[in-house]
Amino acid sequence: MGGLGRICGVLSPVVTPFDSELRPDRERFVRHCRWLIDQGVGLAVFGTNSEANSMSVGEKIALLDALIDAGLPPARMMPGTGCCAFTDSVELTRHALRRRCAGVLMLPPFYYKGVPDDGLFRSYAEIIERVGESDLRIYLYHIPPVSQVPISLALIERLLQAYPGTIAGIKDSSGDWSNTQAMLERFQPREFDVFAGSETFLLATLRGGGAGCITATGNVNPRRIAELARRWRDPDADARQAALDTVRTVFQQYPMIPALKAAIAHHRADPQWATVRPPLVELLPLQQSALVQALESAGFSMPGL
Amino acid sequence: MGGLGRICGVLSPVVTPFDSELRPDRERFVRHCRWLIDQGVGLAVFGTNSEANSMSVGEKIALLDALIDAGLPPARMMPGTGCCAFTDSVELTRHALRRRCAGVLMLPPFYYKGVPDDGLFRSYAEIIERVGESDLRIYLYHIPPVSQVPISLALIERLLQAYPGTIAGIKDSSGDWSNTQAMLERFQPREFDVFAGSETFLLATLRGGGAGCITATGNVNPRRIAELARRWRDPDADARQAALDTVRTVFQQYPMIPALKAAIAHHRADPQWATVRPPLVELLPLQQSALVQALESAGFSMPGL
Repeated sequence: MGGLGRICGVLSPVVTPFDSELRPDRERFVRHCRWLIDQGVGLAVFGTNSEANSMSVGEKIALLDALIDAGLPPARMMPGTGCCAFTDSVELTRHALRRRCAGVLMLPPFYYKGVPDDGLFRSYAEIIERVGESDLRIYLYHIPPVSQVPISLALIERLLQAYPGTIAGIKDSSGDWSNTQAMLERFQPREFDVFAGSETFLLATLRGGGAGCITATGNVNPRRIAELARRWRDPDADARQAALDTVRTVFQQYPMIPALKAAIAHHRADPQWATVRPPLVELLPLQQSALVQALESAGFSMPGL
Repeated sequence: MGGLGRICGVLSPVVTPFDSELRPDRERFVRHCRWLIDQGVGLAVFGTNSEANSMSVGEKIALLDALIDAGLPPARMMPGTGCCAFTDSVELTRHALRRRCAGVLMLPPFYYKGVPDDGLFRSYAEIIERVGESDLRIYLYHIPPVSQVPISLALIERLLQAYPGTIAGIKDSSGDWSNTQAMLERFQPREFDVFAGSETFLLATLRGGGAGCITATGNVNPRRIAELARRWRDPDADARQAALDTVRTVFQQYPMIPALKAAIAHHRADPQWATVRPPLVELLPLQQSALVQALESAGFSMPGL
């Protein structure tokens, strides 16, 4: 998996467009992914913001194939492959590996709550052993507010010792900086790449030696987020971070996924883009126009779209 | 769906046996289901206690086919078909309907938390519209401690009005008797069958006009639970309930699914039965023997196994 080096910098958990029958829309998806790559961000397709768990395994495989067959670079892709059933995770992970993706972002199984670290270790171990390829690169996905199944520091330690090289890093979407900091100090020096779960912590993560961030707003504000990742040692880095925060704050006033899609729909003049799959719901018309207005006031644009 | 009347009484969320390669074991599964039917309980296969979400859609379809092809009665089956992706729920539900199951037990999509009732309504509506059969019977599955996505009384009201007849009832695994009571009062008179989530509330549910219970311990103590459901008007009903509670209390001192499987493994003298899929873990040997001893002290047995 991967090419010359590890995947790093800014990745976008790519929002998934649906057509009027709620089917994944491959054409819109490829076009959006191409724009993201052109803007300088990688493709963490099938993340939380992608409504990945609202799609079947077959739908995700077809979308990944569409992207790669369209010529987009798998070395810039980190598809989400963690499902509740390890058999599904194995199938998706094998496919990502076959298509030469840089790595996979893997949720723990998230139906059962309060499961012991032993069970989570065994879940990752089953997948790794069954896939059985030395070039597999797994990025753990720690997002307790949604999954309700945390990945503890002790579990990371155990996985890293058992599968060095394969356990390649983490996306920390805990929103708890002290947790990210602990991971940076303890694991980053051991070829374990720490990605912040949003650009809010991008500068701090890079200063702490981390790899970058995987962020929802990478879908709409990719160029400026990627710029900070490239120029974080510049004297204006704090000002760049503050500018990113301003845009993010606007989105955070709405349910994130519908808001991202509404912004894309507006800037592409393509209302179909606003569609979400249940259990999510689209923004109300009033919310949509308020969002668009707030973004304009913040000087937001989506150049090259 | 269903035969002469609605499915009611006691159902067991059937535990799923796995072989040494962690594959679902059809032979052991059919044998256990046949024993459960002989003991007088129905088959809520693919519930929480079945590790249903630890299996792929294909694995569940194959298990359901194995059961029905072995001659077990679909009129006594209520397979769980609710997945995170409505496309998966549609596929499983269609299959259950094609095989003439009495009904399906349907979790809400459970990855996203804090979703509005609108989104949950739309999720059930999509499935119902796509399946598009008037003999579909959906039993909602309310299990907030695990799914973290509750099914509110307001949502039930809305679903019942939109899809009377199709929305056929609920399994209430909230553990909150006041919630079950509210459902019994408000919805049971409207051909909406309320099943308690465990036998702890069986007598109270039947006295309140409810349909029965769907209970984990139905896997190991089926006959006596089914007896209470048949004889709940008898003068010794409270004593029967107390006896059931004694057995359940023993199981509740351990993680439920591994404990159920350990008890079956012991009584069948078949250690393979104890196997669980990750993220669950088996009981430790010391826990197993303590469980067996506690069950013996409680006068527990599994006749006819």
